[in-house]
Amino acid sequence: MKFDVLVEIRLRPGIADPQGATIERALPALGFAGVSQVGVGKAIRFTLDAPDEAEARAQVEELCRRFLANPVIEDSEMSLSVGAAP
Amino acid sequence: MKFDVLVEIRLRPGIADPQGATIERALPALGFAGVSQVGVGKAIRFTLDAPDEAEARAQVEELCRRFLANPVIEDSEMSLSVGAAP
Repeated sequence: MKFDVLVEIRLRPGIADPQGATIERALPALGFAGVSQVGVGKAIRFTLDAPDEAEARAQVEELCRRFLANPVIEDSEMSLSVGAAP
Repeated sequence: MKFDVLVEIRLRPGIADPQGATIERALPALGFAGVSQVGVGKAIRFTLDAPDEAEARAQVEELCRRFLANPVIEDSEMSLSVGAAP
Protein backbone atom coordinates (compact mmCIF):
# COMPACT_ATOMS: atom_id res chain seq x y z
CA MET A 1 0.00 0.00 0.00
CA LYS A 2 1.37 3.38 -0.92
CA PHE A 3 1.06 6.39 1.35
CA ASP A 4 1.73 10.03 0.55
CA VAL A 5 3.50 11.50 3.54
CA LEU A 6 4.12 15.13 4.47
CA VAL A 7 6.41 15.82 7.39
CA GLU A 8 6.61 19.37 8.68
CA ILE A 9 9.69 20.13 10.74
CA ARG A 10 9.83 23.31 12.73
CA LEU A 11 12.06 24.75 15.39
CA ARG A 12 10.93 24.22 18.97
CA PRO A 13 9.60 27.26 20.80
CA GLY A 14 12.48 29.29 22.21
CA ILE A 15 15.03 28.23 19.60
CA ALA A 16 16.37 31.21 17.63
CA ASP A 17 14.98 31.39 14.10
CA PRO A 18 17.13 33.88 12.17
CA GLN A 19 15.41 33.15 8.83
CA GLY A 20 12.00 33.87 10.29
CA ALA A 21 13.25 36.96 12.10
CA THR A 22 14.75 38.34 8.89
CA ILE A 23 11.51 37.85 6.97
CA GLU A 24 9.52 39.45 9.77
CA ARG A 25 11.85 42.46 9.91
CA ALA A 26 11.88 42.92 6.13
CA LEU A 27 8.16 42.73 5.37
CA PRO A 28 6.96 46.08 6.74
CA ALA A 29 9.52 47.89 4.56
CA LEU A 30 8.23 45.91 1.56
CA GLY A 31 4.65 46.99 2.12
CA PHE A 32 3.26 44.09 4.15
CA ALA A 33 2.07 45.12 7.59
CA GLY A 34 0.42 42.83 10.09
CA VAL A 35 2.70 39.81 9.73
CA SER A 36 4.14 38.46 12.96
CA GLN A 37 5.54 35.30 14.57
CA VAL A 38 7.23 34.16 11.38
CA GLY A 39 8.79 30.71 11.61
CA VAL A 40 10.62 28.91 8.83
CA GLY A 41 10.77 25.14 8.83
CA LYS A 42 11.08 22.27 6.41
CA ALA A 43 8.38 20.42 4.52
CA ILE A 44 9.45 16.94 3.44
CA ARG A 45 7.17 14.97 1.16
CA PHE A 46 7.65 11.38 0.14
CA THR A 47 5.89 8.19 -0.84
CA LEU A 48 6.08 5.26 1.55
CA ASP A 49 5.30 1.65 0.79
CA ALA A 50 3.93 -0.04 3.91
CA PRO A 51 1.49 -2.89 4.65
CA ASP A 52 -1.02 -0.73 6.56
CA GLU A 53 -1.51 2.73 8.04
CA ALA A 54 -0.39 1.88 11.59
CA GLU A 55 2.86 0.45 10.25
CA ALA A 56 3.33 3.48 7.99
CA ARG A 57 2.85 5.88 10.90
CA ALA A 58 5.32 3.95 13.05
CA GLN A 59 7.92 4.01 10.27
CA VAL A 60 7.51 7.73 9.63
CA GLU A 61 7.73 8.48 13.34
CA GLU A 62 11.01 6.60 13.66
CA LEU A 63 12.30 8.22 10.47
CA CYS A 64 11.58 11.68 11.90
CA ARG A 65 13.08 10.90 15.27
CA ARG A 66 16.25 9.36 13.90
CA PHE A 67 17.04 11.20 10.67
CA LEU A 68 14.76 13.94 9.43
CA ALA A 69 14.50 16.10 12.53
CA ASN A 70 16.92 16.98 15.28
CA PRO A 71 14.76 16.36 18.35
CA VAL A 72 16.93 18.60 20.51
CA ILE A 73 15.85 21.70 18.61
CA GLU A 74 13.08 20.59 16.26
CA ASP A 75 9.51 19.33 16.45
CA SER A 76 7.99 17.30 13.67
CA GLU A 77 4.43 16.74 12.60
CA MET A 78 3.30 14.25 10.00
CA SER A 79 0.28 13.94 7.83
CA LEU A 80 -0.34 10.83 5.87
CA SER A 81 -2.82 9.92 3.18
CA VAL A 82 -3.35 6.87 1.05
CA GLY A 83 -1.70 7.45 -2.30
CA ALA A 84 -4.09 8.16 -5.15
CA ALA A 85 -2.13 6.34 -7.83
CA PRO A 86 -1.26 2.68 -7.18
CA MET B 1 -8.82 39.47 12.75
CA LYS B 2 -5.83 37.20 13.19
CA PHE B 3 -5.12 34.31 10.87
CA ASP B 4 -2.63 31.48 11.33
CA VAL B 5 -1.02 30.90 7.98
CA LEU B 6 1.07 27.99 6.76
CA VAL B 7 2.77 28.32 3.39
CA GLU B 8 4.38 25.24 1.92
CA ILE B 9 6.96 25.94 -0.76
CA ARG B 10 8.20 23.11 -2.90
CA LEU B 11 10.27 22.77 -6.02
CA ARG B 12 8.32 22.52 -9.25
CA PRO B 13 8.29 19.13 -10.96
CA GLY B 14 11.45 18.66 -13.00
CA ILE B 15 13.63 20.96 -10.90
CA ALA B 16 16.59 19.10 -9.39
CA ASP B 17 16.19 18.45 -5.66
CA PRO B 18 19.60 17.38 -4.33
CA GLN B 19 18.45 17.37 -0.69
CA GLY B 20 15.59 15.03 -1.48
CA ALA B 21 17.78 12.83 -3.67
CA THR B 22 20.36 12.51 -0.89
CA ILE B 23 17.74 11.48 1.66
CA GLU B 24 16.27 8.98 -0.77
CA ARG B 25 19.66 7.46 -1.53
CA ALA B 26 20.67 7.26 2.13
CA LEU B 27 17.54 5.68 3.64
CA PRO B 28 17.86 2.09 2.35
CA ALA B 29 21.34 1.84 3.89
CA LEU B 30 19.90 3.12 7.17
CA GLY B 31 17.26 0.44 7.30
CA PHE B 32 14.27 2.18 5.74
CA ALA B 33 13.06 0.57 2.58
CA GLY B 34 10.04 1.65 0.58
CA VAL B 35 10.61 5.41 0.63
CA SER B 36 10.54 7.11 -2.77
CA GLN B 37 9.88 10.45 -4.45
CA VAL B 38 11.41 12.43 -1.61
CA GLY B 39 11.06 16.19 -1.97
CA VAL B 40 12.32 18.78 0.49
CA GLY B 41 10.65 22.16 0.64
CA LYS B 42 10.03 24.96 3.10
CA ALA B 43 7.22 25.38 5.58
CA ILE B 44 6.69 28.98 6.59
CA ARG B 45 4.24 29.74 9.39
CA PHE B 46 3.13 33.17 10.48
CA THR B 47 0.31 35.17 11.95
CA LEU B 48 -1.41 37.71 9.73
CA ASP B 49 -3.65 40.53 10.81
CA ALA B 50 -6.27 41.19 8.12
CA PRO B 51 -9.87 42.45 8.06
CA ASP B 52 -11.35 39.26 6.57
CA GLU B 53 -10.41 35.93 5.03
CA ALA B 54 -10.56 37.02 1.39
CA GLU B 55 -8.22 39.92 2.11
CA ALA B 56 -5.91 37.62 4.09
CA ARG B 57 -5.75 35.12 1.21
CA ALA B 58 -4.99 37.88 -1.29
CA GLN B 59 -2.20 39.23 0.91
CA VAL B 60 -0.62 35.81 1.43
CA GLU B 61 -0.82 35.07 -2.29
CA GLU B 62 1.01 38.27 -3.16
CA LEU B 63 3.53 37.63 -0.39
CA CYS B 64 4.28 34.18 -1.83
CA ARG B 65 4.51 35.42 -5.37
CA ARG B 66 6.76 38.35 -4.59
CA PHE B 67 8.95 37.29 -1.69
CA LEU B 68 8.58 33.86 -0.16
CA ALA B 69 8.77 31.69 -3.27
CA ASN B 70 10.70 31.94 -6.48
CA PRO B 71 7.95 31.29 -9.02
CA VAL B 72 10.46 30.26 -11.67
CA ILE B 73 11.41 27.11 -9.77
CA GLU B 74 8.97 26.88 -6.86
CA ASP B 75 5.27 26.27 -6.28
CA SER B 76 3.56 27.46 -3.13
CA GLU B 77 0.46 26.28 -1.35
CA MET B 78 -1.17 28.05 1.56
CA SER B 79 -3.46 26.97 4.31
CA LEU B 80 -5.10 29.51 6.51
CA SER B 81 -7.10 29.25 9.69
CA VAL B 82 -8.61 31.79 12.02
CA GLY B 83 -6.26 32.24 14.95
CA ALA B 84 -7.39 30.62 18.17
CA ALA B 85 -5.93 33.16 20.57
CA PRO B 86 -6.91 36.80 20.05
